[in-house]
Amino acid sequence: MDFDPEELRPALHRAADWVADYLAGVGAYPVLSQARPGDLTAKLPASPPLQGEPLDRLLDDFESLILPGITHWQHPRFFAYFGITGSAPGILAELLCAGLNVNAMLWRTSPAATELEEVTTGWLREAIGLPPSFRGVINDTASSSTLYALAGAREAVPGLEVRRRGITRSLRFYTSAEAHSSVEKAGLTLGVGSEGVVKIPVDGEFRMEPAALERAIAADRAAGHLPFAVVGTVGTTSTTSIDPIPALAAICEREELWLHVDAAYGGAAAILESQREILAGCERADSVVVNPHKWLFTPIDCSVLYCRREDVLKRAFSVVPDYLASADGEVRNLMDFGNSLGRRFRSLKLWFVMRAFGLDGARERIARHIEWAQELRRWLEADPDFEVLAPSPFSTVVFRCKGGDALNQAIEDAVNSSGEAFISHTTVRGAYALRIAIGNLRTTRDDVRAVYELVRSKARSQTSYSRATSNPSVR
Amino acid sequence: MDFDPEELRPALHRAADWVADYLAGVGAYPVLSQARPGDLTAKLPASPPLQGEPLDRLLDDFESLILPGITHWQHPRFFAYFGITGSAPGILAELLCAGLNVNAMLWRTSPAATELEEVTTGWLREAIGLPPSFRGVINDTASSSTLYALAGAREAVPGLEVRRRGITRSLRFYTSAEAHSSVEKAGLTLGVGSEGVVKIPVDGEFRMEPAALERAIAADRAAGHLPFAVVGTVGTTSTTSIDPIPALAAICEREELWLHVDAAYGGAAAILESQREILAGCERADSVVVNPHKWLFTPIDCSVLYCRREDVLKRAFSVVPDYLASADGEVRNLMDFGNSLGRRFRSLKLWFVMRAFGLDGARERIARHIEWAQELRRWLEADPDFEVLAPSPFSTVVFRCKGGDALNQAIEDAVNSSGEAFISHTTVRGAYALRIAIGNLRTTRDDVRAVYELVRSKARSQTSYSRATSNPSVR
Repeated sequence: MDFDPEELRPALHRAADWVADYLAGVGAYPVLSQARPGDLTAKLPASPPLQGEPLDRLLDDFESLILPGITHWQHPRFFAYFGITGSAPGILAELLCAGLNVNAMLWRTSPAATELEEVTTGWLREAIGLPPSFRGVINDTASSSTLYALAGAREAVPGLEVRRRGITRSLRFYTSAEAHSSVEKAGLTLGVGSEGVVKIPVDGEFRMEPAALERAIAADRAAGHLPFAVVGTVGTTSTTSIDPIPALAAICEREELWLHVDAAYGGAAAILESQREILAGCERADSVVVNPHKWLFTPIDCSVLYCRREDVLKRAFSVVPDYLASADGEVRNLMDFGNSLGRRFRSLKLWFVMRAFGLDGARERIARHIEWAQELRRWLEADPDFEVLAPSPFSTVVFRCKGGDALNQAIEDAVNSSGEAFISHTTVRGAYALRIAIGNLRTTRDDVRAVYELVRSKARSQTSYSRATSNPSVR
Repeated sequence: MDFDPEELRPALHRAADWVADYLAGVGAYPVLSQARPGDLTAKLPASPPLQGEPLDRLLDDFESLILPGITHWQHPRFFAYFGITGSAPGILAELLCAGLNVNAMLWRTSPAATELEEVTTGWLREAIGLPPSFRGVINDTASSSTLYALAGAREAVPGLEVRRRGITRSLRFYTSAEAHSSVEKAGLTLGVGSEGVVKIPVDGEFRMEPAALERAIAADRAAGHLPFAVVGTVGTTSTTSIDPIPALAAICEREELWLHVDAAYGGAAAILESQREILAGCERADSVVVNPHKWLFTPIDCSVLYCRREDVLKRAFSVVPDYLASADGEVRNLMDFGNSLGRRFRSLKLWFVMRAFGLDGARERIARHIEWAQELRRWLEADPDFEVLAPSPFSTVVFRCKGGDALNQAIEDAVNSSGEAFISHTTVRGAYALRIAIGNLRTTRDDVRAVYELVRSKARSQTSYSRATSNPSVR
């Protein structure tokens, strides 16, 4: 037997209160966990318990042992990587999803899960302005979505018969030098190899150079390699730059290459009419990935892969053993469109989030994030101690304190170890750069101002400290 | 802003009660959803709402619109595929996990998530008797775990330099004709191709024939192919057969091939001392996958990949861009061991489940499932209308009603459309076979008896119906 539902009930109520209290008070925690390596491990027994323990004791230990080792992604001053939110309706849906525990591998293994995935990804598709020729499937992460898209691209190469024969040619696909690491990783997983992932140089605003792409394709063809895809990005991770998708689409059409667009972060902004043009050209792409778990308030994991050639995706992936064959007729079985057979009921949280906020509500929130990022950018531009290093088309600002890499790294460390905010870094034209990404729903304009002030104050104490220690007369 | 926590609180409490009530009453639902294709889609608007909606309305719609389209995997009479349970402690952990919404990609992005993954997979490793040389990582599904293991195997081939150069040789790996579809799918994804996935014949008990494996390897080498791995299975999906892992290990050692063992289902049974020998030889494997979300009461998704050569896995997958570089020293960053960068805090539910049941509690439950399956087997063997088609080393019984494929398919349909139980099918030596898999914690011996009686009664009405319709004198 499972625990009696009457034992689970009070534990779930306690956890419900804990979650509500946590979200109300999350701002009081240090954002970046202050734990040191091994802290939690040292507190846990090396072996599992023989006897079962009451649910209340687990909740006690969760609070006392786990919490200190949590970096608070829900914190209003989480500005690292990309800010995200596991919003209230999304959390609610995750509880129901866990309660049902369905595996949506086949239509029959929960028709509602399969159909809701089609409906909600259709809603999001419409909201960001992609045409109805794209159908959506929800994967765990953009890493998976991009892997599957490129597997489709590889399958689509005429005459290659990769499904049957495997890779028998030297394959090449193209992405910008600023593309996300998952694009290269997909190349490794697919057996294309890192040499097959050709990184095209970017222009002064970190956008792929179409002319350089054309040259690379021509050179590879001349050298006997087989180009099969281009991956453009709308919102790169380092600087949130936007590749010239219409130009890439034209090249892909001419060269007969699959165009995949990584809009995992940036795609969310296209729900704003004023931002609609960021996805211009994507209607000509073969596949596009957008992650509701990034900037659309959906708890991780939820990455939507849109594809105009689902038949090819299915050809790349569908394996139907006898024990999974079903006689349900013309239904869509989600297992056919990727590597993972098992799949959670992820569309439930996307449905809850899109309905609870409404499209207008989501637009307003994203517009605010963009607006605050532009304000932050102006403060930094007006500040003689700082320089902004890249355009900020979305809600992320990349900058540095004038001075060396070590100084900026020291500022980042000082900010993060203060516990007051969590920012991250990148490299821009070889220089260590600081990144502030706004994306959490609890973040206010005051929080943005506060992180700016915090960075400034840490910069000042670093520079006065380094002036002090580098000037022997002060000693 | 997110919803006010004070709006979330009552909604979470309502959902908590719903889940507790659901689990108390899940036996009253038809197990297999009675929905027809398009039922849910027809009830939903084609476009997302503009205005936000209250959380209570979402919960109302969840109950009225979604529930009829759910196949109840939590139902005590869910006997299809592999029976699973999203147990009470697991559900509790999933709520907390959603509340925290951490991404455990790097140690620093939540040290507790990374360390708890190491500790809990260590507990499970010890519980199933694998040596400490194996380290565990949690993936979504066994499809991913097997994909990653085989990517490690491919990377390990000396001189191939697959990470840099991609696939430049005709690769071959070996698995039994009874292996899970995810093994073949991994071959497709990795660019090995279906021809590169060599299916070795099985013996009378559906176990891979080591002699046939040796011949296949020799023939492939002679033909210029490059063998790189063998995938054995402990508990195949169709009949739960157990490949002779010690013999496979010996061959792999001699031939210098990576041995991966798919124990996604069967591995759980090894927590019983009396079943420990099912994993004999696995200590010599390079990697082993065990899914706590199958027969260890953990909500999906939770698949543990154990690997003795984590350095190779890391070589196959680690891509560390500047924006993810961290100066945390000798910590383990979970993103390094697979394709997906983002990852949920999945170890929390494994920790809750292992502690709440305790090892003895889990053992007792799994022992019961095995015992009931043996009883069911004996009932079927004693019944002149039925024949058991394969050994039942675990909790799954594969059988058929004496008669043709159409009869057995009709019995399955009749059982499933009754809503009283959900069973599935497979093909055994070319014949349509019925499968009853016991794995849900709410299942009792009475439920097992009931599904047996149900199958019998449906078989009788089918055979009398077919006798009636095929005998003109009765008309």
